[in-house]
Amino acid sequence: MKSYKDFAVVLALQAGKIIKDNFIKGVSKEWKKDDTPITVVDRQINTLVINFINSAYPDHSILSEEESDLKESDYVWVCDPIDGTVPFAHGFPLSTFTLSLTYKGEVILGVIYDPYLERLTVAEKGKGAYINNKKIAVSDASTIRNTVIDVETWNSSLYDLTPLFAPLHHQGSQVTILRSAVYSGMLIGMGMLGGMIFANKTAWDAAAVKIVVEEAGGKVTDLFGNDQLYNQDIKGYVASNGILHQELIDLIKQHITSK
Amino acid sequence: MKSYKDFAVVLALQAGKIIKDNFIKGVSKEWKKDDTPITVVDRQINTLVINFINSAYPDHSILSEEESDLKESDYVWVCDPIDGTVPFAHGFPLSTFTLSLTYKGEVILGVIYDPYLERLTVAEKGKGAYINNKKIAVSDASTIRNTVIDVETWNSSLYDLTPLFAPLHHQGSQVTILRSAVYSGMLIGMGMLGGMIFANKTAWDAAAVKIVVEEAGGKVTDLFGNDQLYNQDIKGYVASNGILHQELIDLIKQHITSK
Repeated sequence: MKSYKDFAVVLALQAGKIIKDNFIKGVSKEWKKDDTPITVVDRQINTLVINFINSAYPDHSILSEEESDLKESDYVWVCDPIDGTVPFAHGFPLSTFTLSLTYKGEVILGVIYDPYLERLTVAEKGKGAYINNKKIAVSDASTIRNTVIDVETWNSSLYDLTPLFAPLHHQGSQVTILRSAVYSGMLIGMGMLGGMIFANKTAWDAAAVKIVVEEAGGKVTDLFGNDQLYNQDIKGYVASNGILHQELIDLIKQHITSK
Repeated sequence: MKSYKDFAVVLALQAGKIIKDNFIKGVSKEWKKDDTPITVVDRQINTLVINFINSAYPDHSILSEEESDLKESDYVWVCDPIDGTVPFAHGFPLSTFTLSLTYKGEVILGVIYDPYLERLTVAEKGKGAYINNKKIAVSDASTIRNTVIDVETWNSSLYDLTPLFAPLHHQGSQVTILRSAVYSGMLIGMGMLGGMIFANKTAWDAAAVKIVVEEAGGKVTDLFGNDQLYNQDIKGYVASNGILHQELIDLIKQHITSK
């Protein structure tokens, strides 16, 4: 019997191929009520995921962006069929497929697949994080100055993070909004970005980041520095190389009110 | 004798290959005083550009990010060896090579090459804009709501555009900061993004966008709606599908003070 990891990898490679094959080809755009574009492809991958998991692990629960299959189970698979639907629908190659396995809310396996550059990121609890089987590690940046910090906030987010842009810029951070949270998390695990701040409550944008970044030596908490569960709604998150974590939390506490 | 266009295309394909070949491979990072990362690759391409142009058009002037070769000439080539040095140095494939030809400050030819997805964008004055020889056109978006608007501003910029983030978000725009201005300009020409707002005075981040977007049916002005020359420092710019232009200019006038 295959391991959870091998199972998730096979699924990720299939899903990623669908993302790449359909990119730029004039996908039909729809708009959900929260203003995120969603495509036929998104749904196609979601169905694939549900069928795969139900075949292999019929007792496990599935929490996914387009369609879930919730059951009473300690094991919940958390999936975003296309992380980065805005990039996918607007011609820039920053989307991933991401799938995580949580046990009682703790992430024990995370997979992120970037099909454009064929970067397959895998992290298992206590076993480190890898891209294409090479161990990755967060950066050693000790200040947010000159460090790339990604901020993900939009009109419908749980928190409005727009008050953070001015202080981040004025302190010399290289701020990005890539509109692909898990992609940014992958880049933190690789040591490319110093951190990211995510405003939403969607666990599928967070679970893989939690384990990949922490297994690469970094830290992930909610926006105010607290631990949280990843099999249910979250209260945003901060992911960082660890060194910068408190600096980012302090900045948030200064400008954003907790809910 | 080759046309300016054919000359620029040959150069772009060579430069783009250097960008792609050196991506992710552990480039050595340096930091310039304005906090933009620059790499050995950036300089290598810049030297290639100067040598190429001096061989073919010895009387023409060259304005380029890393090293210029300024002469008294109505013709000025404007180049960014790597547009998007932040993406290039941080593991996400959003950089381009860009080269434009200006005559008395007006852009008459613009080339943008995205080496990752092999998208070669070419625009000549009065002849339309093309990606890989297919005609492109801006979007027909009629409101910034649900439309992707890219904002490029950082600590060292001529203008601080951070006051724009809150109103753009609250009006429902899908805001990005891709850190690759010419790349965003290409996406506007393709009809993917509705517009972008650029805070800096660097002409090489603007010249190709000016002609590509306008030949694709859109509009490019300075931040306050005025025309400007592209063979010298600029006062930021707004590029849009044309329809959204005044809405973006009005937003800027409301929140940013002209210099």
